[in-house]
Amino acid sequence: MTEDTDQLTTSAASAPRERRGRGERSGAAARRAARSGGGPGQSLTYITRKVPTYEVLSEEGLAIIESNADTILEEVGIEFRDDAEALQMWRDAGADVKGERVRFPKGLCRELLKSAPSSFTQHARNPAKSVQIGGDSTVFVPVYGPPFVRDLEGNRRYATIEDFQNFVKLAYMAPSMHHSGGTVCEPVDVPVNKRHLDMVMAHMTLSDKPFMGSVTAPERAQDTVDMCKILFGEEFVDNNAVVINLINANSPMVFDDTMVGAAKVYARNNQACIVTPFILAGAMSPVTVAGTLTQVLAEVLAGAAFTQLVRPGAPVLFGTFASSISMQSGAPTFGTPEPSLVSYGAAQLARRLGLPFRTGGSLTASKVADAQAAYESANTLNSTLLAGTNFVLHSAGWLEGGLVSSYEKFMMDIDQLGMMQRLAQGIDLSENGQAMDAIREVGPGQHYLGCAHTQANFQEAFYRSSIADNNSFEQWQAEGQKPAHQRANELAQKWLDAYEAPFIDPGILDGLTDFVSKKKESMPDAFT
Amino acid sequence: MTEDTDQLTTSAASAPRERRGRGERSGAAARRAARSGGGPGQSLTYITRKVPTYEVLSEEGLAIIESNADTILEEVGIEFRDDAEALQMWRDAGADVKGERVRFPKGLCRELLKSAPSSFTQHARNPAKSVQIGGDSTVFVPVYGPPFVRDLEGNRRYATIEDFQNFVKLAYMAPSMHHSGGTVCEPVDVPVNKRHLDMVMAHMTLSDKPFMGSVTAPERAQDTVDMCKILFGEEFVDNNAVVINLINANSPMVFDDTMVGAAKVYARNNQACIVTPFILAGAMSPVTVAGTLTQVLAEVLAGAAFTQLVRPGAPVLFGTFASSISMQSGAPTFGTPEPSLVSYGAAQLARRLGLPFRTGGSLTASKVADAQAAYESANTLNSTLLAGTNFVLHSAGWLEGGLVSSYEKFMMDIDQLGMMQRLAQGIDLSENGQAMDAIREVGPGQHYLGCAHTQANFQEAFYRSSIADNNSFEQWQAEGQKPAHQRANELAQKWLDAYEAPFIDPGILDGLTDFVSKKKESMPDAFT
Repeated sequence: MTEDTDQLTTSAASAPRERRGRGERSGAAARRAARSGGGPGQSLTYITRKVPTYEVLSEEGLAIIESNADTILEEVGIEFRDDAEALQMWRDAGADVKGERVRFPKGLCRELLKSAPSSFTQHARNPAKSVQIGGDSTVFVPVYGPPFVRDLEGNRRYATIEDFQNFVKLAYMAPSMHHSGGTVCEPVDVPVNKRHLDMVMAHMTLSDKPFMGSVTAPERAQDTVDMCKILFGEEFVDNNAVVINLINANSPMVFDDTMVGAAKVYARNNQACIVTPFILAGAMSPVTVAGTLTQVLAEVLAGAAFTQLVRPGAPVLFGTFASSISMQSGAPTFGTPEPSLVSYGAAQLARRLGLPFRTGGSLTASKVADAQAAYESANTLNSTLLAGTNFVLHSAGWLEGGLVSSYEKFMMDIDQLGMMQRLAQGIDLSENGQAMDAIREVGPGQHYLGCAHTQANFQEAFYRSSIADNNSFEQWQAEGQKPAHQRANELAQKWLDAYEAPFIDPGILDGLTDFVSKKKESMPDAFT
Repeated sequence: MTEDTDQLTTSAASAPRERRGRGERSGAAARRAARSGGGPGQSLTYITRKVPTYEVLSEEGLAIIESNADTILEEVGIEFRDDAEALQMWRDAGADVKGERVRFPKGLCRELLKSAPSSFTQHARNPAKSVQIGGDSTVFVPVYGPPFVRDLEGNRRYATIEDFQNFVKLAYMAPSMHHSGGTVCEPVDVPVNKRHLDMVMAHMTLSDKPFMGSVTAPERAQDTVDMCKILFGEEFVDNNAVVINLINANSPMVFDDTMVGAAKVYARNNQACIVTPFILAGAMSPVTVAGTLTQVLAEVLAGAAFTQLVRPGAPVLFGTFASSISMQSGAPTFGTPEPSLVSYGAAQLARRLGLPFRTGGSLTASKVADAQAAYESANTLNSTLLAGTNFVLHSAGWLEGGLVSSYEKFMMDIDQLGMMQRLAQGIDLSENGQAMDAIREVGPGQHYLGCAHTQANFQEAFYRSSIADNNSFEQWQAEGQKPAHQRANELAQKWLDAYEAPFIDPGILDGLTDFVSKKKESMPDAFT
């Protein structure tokens, strides 16, 4: 019973499709890594939740917030800045446009949103890793956006393209990570006008999981779409979602030209947008949960409806990024009760609207992967899962309020994601799950370790953490008294050493390489 | 807005009743501590949850488990060991007793449990700190049982009576800790047959919150009751619950004479018992969640019904201690998905039985207050709260699978308890909560920091952590790059320095002191 019987014997690198490709390192090394505790394992399919959602708002409460959001849309309005085309589209749709302020007749946004799908597939180049977004599904996605990293030597420094590639590799190898993400860190060593090409290229070639596109300028969004056409084929892209994109509102009640520009490109190409009010409550929304929910709903209604003006039927998500600020220092805080309540409430509003929902992740303000980081991340992640969130950006690697991508935190977080995936399966009530034979066999005062039911089930019975040390104090002491972040550090290094790239068709790879080279040559480097 | 506007300006030491007493340190010192970030604050009343419970089992699933538990009680039975009186009581009640094995006719236990209250008050000597146990209430209680401590110098060593007193002081000062607990650590420097006297004395004199009694022998349970009679008055004790006591099953399906003996003393005296199967699933119960729930229910039905045989109407709780073991090493694990599912399911079973429920806490296998400790504790605590748990033992201070009481962990956990208390209040939908005036006043593109609604609400708007560092990296670096556990360490020291004992009637104090002295003199020291 005490021998090591690792259930994760199939590494990501030995899955059928990948077997054809060979990276620099041998498959044997990857398999060795897989057998050692916490090695990378076979990818898990995205979560299909079998547990209910947790609902904090009553029907009456939801109706109040919806009615208030309608009032905001009608009376206060939303600004679409520096984009005459967007304003004209709203005018044509029947909205009241004065300057850049758009006011919406009652029901207009909801009417427009009827064409948006409540659930859709985001295709991966490896079809086994395509994800369903909406309904009972939950998809875990890495951290997005940090300009800094905490590297494996413990330094906090600007992120590079090598860091970016490393996080893509780790996400590819992590069984409970269903997505490759987007800006897993900002590779500041690459010119600002060209880095999106290297980022998209990394997602397409170093991983075979679904990924996110560039939103920092309309032409970069177009480059993303063009690269997707090379990877998936032109017709396939026009008919299917192959890239998902983060369109943040500039809260309160503003969408700027950058975000609207990117949204137009993606929606026109039938690709998915996540319309997300980025809220630090108290600064960008009222200091109350209900007030924040009201503003979030109004902003999402306007932004998501806009994508349907661009192309009816284009996939769009109800996004919420909920944090509070410290009213004493102005600093953002995470893992506190108010953002959890916002997440629970916003998820309910999204379900009533019939849109897939994004919020949460593993968020923290901590500067290092310490207890603060873990408490705050776990509080956020638990509410994210139980809210019934469909798309969980920032589910691993986030540190320091999103300024830092941390290797150690990434490894700790993906372990937690595995736990959440198991939790979401609920309670097995099959005859085997009921275990009455075991109870009868063992009887009072005996133990279950050796009984037939235990022998038949023990390998899969309990979630096995790749980070937790459950050994005795004496053994932990003999092994160097390592805290969790140090074990995570060693695991990240082990995984990176064992990484092997998934196979990619050489013709497609050439096409992508050619596209990126020509684009880069077409313009001088820019650094601002 | 950035000035410090600490909302916790009333320290525990300056509450009306305590004001009459003066400890060694001045009230001014306590108030200074209170104003500094993370100082002790005014005690919060126990939680009355305004959020719903989270339910993972359907009606059908619950019925399967209940039916299976009835089958166990009828066919397998439960052993009551080395207690002829208990066996005779079961015989008299109509059970089938063979040797020490008791088999229960269908419905007998449920019938007996009809006399048990679904909710009751546990009285504290300070009436403002009495707690309601059952229904929508949640009461947080410190760690129970560890023989070791991690002290403020970072040593792991056997616990002493001084440590015990320190944890009682910290629990007394912690706003979100509603209870003084029981064996907050095991004071191994006091003879084993006398330490219960010092422990109960510490709870009665160093705190005015409700507390737990000794269960290590029937005569020690009786000493606890006798001391309660001195503190509360004889008649009051006979008519009211003033002490609550942990009666663990010796799972699977055994109650031993120590636990049954203590249960008899407390139930006869109308005091509360928590009947808790102590389960490391895979060893003491089947490896499946449903099988574990079935066994837990059967054990609780038998043990709780026994208290009603002793005295119909005596308060009794449905307890569950859920952990899994690593099937590879045999070590207990915490914070994993399976125990959370057990907690959610057991809470549902308890509600259907009409008994108050105890489970969870802030559990971890980690040896130090690191990220593992925090992830595992937060996972456990979130499921504990959302399950609708009434009595949360081990809610602060637990480390190393319950072998260690940690000062640092205690301080970090009580901060989390404060967050849970806020979360349980749900979403304020009052006009002020809706904040429509604020949204109208601020408008698109502006910020909320200066608006009238923010000014009126910012002091109470968001939970303020006493441990989290939300400052910039640069400021955190300038302040010594302290990880969370180091900040917690400094806070514990600050609190202990500021502690002042609550007032106690000198006559009662003399009575207690006299009782303890006489008891100690009546027998030689025993160390095993």
